[in-house]
Amino acid sequence: MKRNIKLTIEYDGTDFVGWQRQPNGRTVQEELEKAVATVTREQSSVTGAGRTDSGVHARGQVANFITTNGISTTELQRSLNGLLPHDIAVHSVEEAEEGFSARYSAICRHYRYFIATRPTALERNFTWELGYAMDVDKMNHAAFSIMGIHDFQAFCKAESEVEHHLCNVMESCWQQTDRHMIYSVRANRFLHGMVRALVGTMVNIGRGYTPIEDFQTILESRQRSKAGQAAPSKGLFLERVTY
Amino acid sequence: MKRNIKLTIEYDGTDFVGWQRQPNGRTVQEELEKAVATVTREQSSVTGAGRTDSGVHARGQVANFITTNGISTTELQRSLNGLLPHDIAVHSVEEAEEGFSARYSAICRHYRYFIATRPTALERNFTWELGYAMDVDKMNHAAFSIMGIHDFQAFCKAESEVEHHLCNVMESCWQQTDRHMIYSVRANRFLHGMVRALVGTMVNIGRGYTPIEDFQTILESRQRSKAGQAAPSKGLFLERVTY
Repeated sequence: MKRNIKLTIEYDGTDFVGWQRQPNGRTVQEELEKAVATVTREQSSVTGAGRTDSGVHARGQVANFITTNGISTTELQRSLNGLLPHDIAVHSVEEAEEGFSARYSAICRHYRYFIATRPTALERNFTWELGYAMDVDKMNHAAFSIMGIHDFQAFCKAESEVEHHLCNVMESCWQQTDRHMIYSVRANRFLHGMVRALVGTMVNIGRGYTPIEDFQTILESRQRSKAGQAAPSKGLFLERVTY
Repeated sequence: MKRNIKLTIEYDGTDFVGWQRQPNGRTVQEELEKAVATVTREQSSVTGAGRTDSGVHARGQVANFITTNGISTTELQRSLNGLLPHDIAVHSVEEAEEGFSARYSAICRHYRYFIATRPTALERNFTWELGYAMDVDKMNHAAFSIMGIHDFQAFCKAESEVEHHLCNVMESCWQQTDRHMIYSVRANRFLHGMVRALVGTMVNIGRGYTPIEDFQTILESRQRSKAGQAAPSKGLFLERVTY
């Protein structure tokens, strides 16, 4: 009998070239497929909800695969955590319905981006360290303006092959703590490099490099060259995927 | 003119053999002394408040050194952070009084120990991962019982050369969250290996391996062999030092 298995996964993206299997470099997908093959004795393709880039982390990535092996979900989780390298951890293993796809069934993805506002040693692989002052109100003015359905081509890597660039943004806001600026964003889908391009552009606004009035112009231009440089991948976390 | 400079420091202990300078191995003290010598062009000895062991981290270690160099504290902080390796960060640089010693002037040290209660990839260097259920009430029963002045020889490495083993404990408690068990302890001083021996012993109580009634007997025995195994160093953080 075919079973559809849903995994919830945490990983430290530092030493990966990203989620997606590729000819050169260590990927999360490949490590998972190797571990799944060892446990189930079947070659399965593991599909992820978000194909995170090199260096991007995940606290709640979701993936699924098909197997005919009858192993219990508890035993499967234990075996995978025993086999996987230390920078990947499986938080849960569940039975999913036949038609479930971690990628296509997802209705919302939640990312957060962490900026450290003072020098840090412990979080050096998990934050973008920025020494200059930023105006969080201006950054939130830009962040709030992308709520709802918009064309995000200006914040999408040029080489991406997608049918359209419309995303429905359900949350977009900056929060300031004593040591961090945190950008939290939820949408039905994200384009390639979108969160990092948004963060890079909004940081330019926060530090006064880009006037706040230009943000709308950048968004409407649909040209990646108008937006700011991508923020470093190490500050980005895929927090959660909703179905 | 001699200046006494106080540093507040964060470090990731993973790749250090500890705070204290020694013939072999990379130490936080030696890295700081090298950076200070480069900036001030003087050889200064850097004294730390807590001589953390190999693998132990710090969010708020305090250190001081003497210099005759007239560099401003702002410039000194910037230069040190530029020179130091990425696993050390200087949070603040202040002028201290002539008699100030980071070690001997301290009146209270605050440590926290982090246990991860589910598999983790992102925190693998910063937590002790424990899969079994623990009774936090029993652990707090033991934790509360060490409040006040007690002889902690049972929780001190045997080879330590100290005049006495009395410590005044001002805080000692466990807190449970959805993913962690956190032990928070404040005292005027700590003996060598004390927090890790306390955590190891209290975990044995929490998992039902050591009866709660034995804790008082262990404390009063003054024998390290009666207490539990030391918890791994990677879960321990020196949070703050008070003067």
